[in-house]
Amino acid sequence: MSAAEERLAGLGLSVPEVPTPVAVYVPAVVSDDLVFTSGQLPMKNGELMLTGKVGGEVGLEEAAACAEQCALNAIAAVKSRVGDLDRVVQVVKVVVFVASTPDFTGQPQVANGASELLGKVFGDAGVHARSAVGVPVLPLDSPVEVEVVVRVAPGSAE
Amino acid sequence: MSAAEERLAGLGLSVPEVPTPVAVYVPAVVSDDLVFTSGQLPMKNGELMLTGKVGGEVGLEEAAACAEQCALNAIAAVKSRVGDLDRVVQVVKVVVFVASTPDFTGQPQVANGASELLGKVFGDAGVHARSAVGVPVLPLDSPVEVEVVVRVAPGSAE
Amino acid sequence: MSAAEERLAGLGLSVPEVPTPVAVYVPAVVSDDLVFTSGQLPMKNGELMLTGKVGGEVGLEEAAACAEQCALNAIAAVKSRVGDLDRVVQVVKVVVFVASTPDFTGQPQVANGASELLGKVFGDAGVHARSAVGVPVLPLDSPVEVEVVVRVAPGSAE
Repeated sequence: MSAAEERLAGLGLSVPEVPTPVAVYVPAVVSDDLVFTSGQLPMKNGELMLTGKVGGEVGLEEAAACAEQCALNAIAAVKSRVGDLDRVVQVVKVVVFVASTPDFTGQPQVANGASELLGKVFGDAGVHARSAVGVPVLPLDSPVEVEVVVRVAPGSAE
Repeated sequence: MSAAEERLAGLGLSVPEVPTPVAVYVPAVVSDDLVFTSGQLPMKNGELMLTGKVGGEVGLEEAAACAEQCALNAIAAVKSRVGDLDRVVQVVKVVVFVASTPDFTGQPQVANGASELLGKVFGDAGVHARSAVGVPVLPLDSPVEVEVVVRVAPGSAE
Repeated sequence: MSAAEERLAGLGLSVPEVPTPVAVYVPAVVSDDLVFTSGQLPMKNGELMLTGKVGGEVGLEEAAACAEQCALNAIAAVKSRVGDLDRVVQVVKVVVFVASTPDFTGQPQVANGASELLGKVFGDAGVHARSAVGVPVLPLDSPVEVEVVVRVAPGSAE
């Protein structure tokens, strides 16, 4: 087991299965030493954890938990392409889209759910650049969507 | 003619002219072996195909057709920088912004209009990572905006 | 002083201090020869220049000035990682999120505030690919958020 997955296990988490990709796009693509994930929703055991808008029916802590799940799914997407998560040498960039009511301005606090998990799993390599923005609505009425770019050690990707 | 353009011709499509760039930004930038396009609107013959919000005055199929046109314009932007589209070895990442009413959650179906065209044109190299998100409004009241990152064969850009 | 900073000084501007990063993410990350900034808000002397929605309480020119400040903060974030701004050989990609009322469609004009500053500071190297999109709300009720990717000369980053 990779050290990253041992740290996940210590958090009571494990790398989920990656859903069978649809035909037209895939959960992650490797380009040289970068891995770009698709936007990840907070799917857990095949279902969205929650639906709705943050600041409305979805609370801040619930949304942060959704962002954490999105990040976990992004980790799974990366693993599906590089095999061993310890090949991740840097989480480069994270974008967190938060389905927000017009008066909800706590997108960074929601995004911390994703950022903190990445820090716990990857340590120093998990410190990243980040954007957090509000959007009116996301696919399937998800409250959060997260995309991630990581760098892997040269020669380690597929 | 490149194989990619032959496949486009087989779909009854051709690579459009790239609008004269404004001074402050350009349709696409090459960085090492990656080409980053600007966000593309569904301009066709110099005009937006449609305006308005998806889920409101713009229907799902119309929006998917707009996303396809955005992707076609992104292909044109890439071609303007690399010349021969067969130098594209991988479509890496696609982001699809869908101007949505607050209750429209079918952004992935809209985005498929872009993804499917890229698959038809580039084949296996067209399979990409993707994010699809709702936004309240886009430039010129466009229903869709699409940005694309592709990788080209080393040494083949400009 | 770098030539880029001399040009800034000629505009009456200087590179601001980079705020102390929070623990979970940082203002910019270097990956090979690319520098990815976090989404930058129009912070000036430790405060947001303005709050609110463009098309509502925030006017177009005010929003463009905010976008310029975001770009200045992005330049500062880059400098914090590469030291000498003259190592920037290309501004690759800029994304401008504009907190917009549903009927405001002038996101490109807002984004020009960022693009024009980058052009003035970096010259030919400042010409970039760009996306400008509307969003309903941004962190801290900021009217604008800007993220930037630049390429630096090989071997020049940290």
